[in-house]
Amino acid sequence: MTEYFESCARRMATKFHAEAHSFPSLIGADVLDRCRYLKNFPASLNLVSHLRENYAVLQEFARSVRCDGRHLIHDRAGMSEVECLLSPSVCFRWYRWLERSTLPDPRAITALGKCFRYESSNLSGLERLWDFSMREIIFVGPEAYVLQNRAVLIELCTEFLDELGLAYEISTATDPFFADSYALQAAYPQGFELKYELLATLPYSGKKLAIGSINYHQDFFGRSFLIEVEGGPAHTGCLTLGYERLALAFLAQHGVDETRWPKAALGGVQNAAWQVNRA
Amino acid sequence: MTEYFESCARRMATKFHAEAHSFPSLIGADVLDRCRYLKNFPASLNLVSHLRENYAVLQEFARSVRCDGRHLIHDRAGMSEVECLLSPSVCFRWYRWLERSTLPDPRAITALGKCFRYESSNLSGLERLWDFSMREIIFVGPEAYVLQNRAVLIELCTEFLDELGLAYEISTATDPFFADSYALQAAYPQGFELKYELLATLPYSGKKLAIGSINYHQDFFGRSFLIEVEGGPAHTGCLTLGYERLALAFLAQHGVDETRWPKAALGGVQNAAWQVNRA
Repeated sequence: MTEYFESCARRMATKFHAEAHSFPSLIGADVLDRCRYLKNFPASLNLVSHLRENYAVLQEFARSVRCDGRHLIHDRAGMSEVECLLSPSVCFRWYRWLERSTLPDPRAITALGKCFRYESSNLSGLERLWDFSMREIIFVGPEAYVLQNRAVLIELCTEFLDELGLAYEISTATDPFFADSYALQAAYPQGFELKYELLATLPYSGKKLAIGSINYHQDFFGRSFLIEVEGGPAHTGCLTLGYERLALAFLAQHGVDETRWPKAALGGVQNAAWQVNRA
Repeated sequence: MTEYFESCARRMATKFHAEAHSFPSLIGADVLDRCRYLKNFPASLNLVSHLRENYAVLQEFARSVRCDGRHLIHDRAGMSEVECLLSPSVCFRWYRWLERSTLPDPRAITALGKCFRYESSNLSGLERLWDFSMREIIFVGPEAYVLQNRAVLIELCTEFLDELGLAYEISTATDPFFADSYALQAAYPQGFELKYELLATLPYSGKKLAIGSINYHQDFFGRSFLIEVEGGPAHTGCLTLGYERLALAFLAQHGVDETRWPKAALGGVQNAAWQVNRA
């Protein structure tokens, strides 16, 4: 099923001539700091440490480490400082890559990445995973370029979710993480929304699950990472699709019996499987 | 290029009727403990923590966190215990999945995963990445099934590396991580090697780079995870291919000028790119 989602997402990406990239899952603490993620989402951070590069520390760890069934029991003083975290999204790494550059033209890319958000006791079942797969299509360019592509994205997502035969809605959300009150004040009177969520209904609970989002960051990342285009800070926007949640919503709505799936989706899944097996 | 490697690996996997799976990058501390990885490779471990689920801790972190350009500056007492680590390989998760089961038949699967090994100051350039992509084909079954498939794997890898036009060797290594002295004593007289490395030459340094390995674990994981087949602990084996290293070796040997690449490999790369764009 992921292969099928992938083929749909790639088809969307080609409409924007989006180059395929891939990024590491680790992200530097300084990058998340500049994205304002550390201070705004402390509860969902995943801090990565290793052991200190000291022979005695390593030996003592090897001698004494054990598990209590759930946690590692070890001397925490042996842990290194935190240099990297697990990336909560794909696009941050792209903005970091473009840091201090002037783009000759607006640019679209696409990447599939593993993303990580700690969700405490909400981490049960497939609705919220600690570790999930996210496909993004990312735009960097002047304001008009990003807004125009966002409008096309909304259309393409509508086609895609219709092909899946899903009950869904695309609605504006008021929690763009990066927006400080200044950005919100500036954005709302001008009538452009910063975040649209793709919400699918889960029949078993009646709740709505965000299976993706379409974001417009204004020039927040352009300013944070000094990315210029056409003489000013670049504007950015992205589509995110969470594949595990998409699969959950699809199976929750249509069931596991393939004969009851919408025809277009069944054909897509079969075709994707055939492509893989033929490779 | 990764797409091309993927199509080759999938072609190999279909010869074994290996089902496609995918696994999270996080792995429980208890699983790595049972794989003897904690005690044998302390230096390469990546420990994942989050902040303690306490409002005061989160608030204090948000207020005071900063970066010194490289490390996170924060109150380490606010960090949780370590429940998960970043997985250093793909197959551990599969053995864990099969835990306490009796297989009706031998079974082959394949998965692509992100793997993580901390390598200290060796983490420079592409030869050793902290965070890399590994494709595995994994066999679980009786001894004869695993050994026979291993022989086929060696042939298929030879064909694959020949198609890439690489200068390489497949040679036995003496450091299977899981083997205690008993296993080594038992294995060597019987004349079966536990680990073959796929080594490609890097012309710029003259050194050999391990781009993959073919491993036979005897019944180590079968015993550790209580996996049974045909009335005894299952034997396991796997092929691992590291895509970033494979790409590095290919480019180091053939250069970036596509017209000088071996014909079969160029055709493969172009065909893989065409498949993606056509999707």
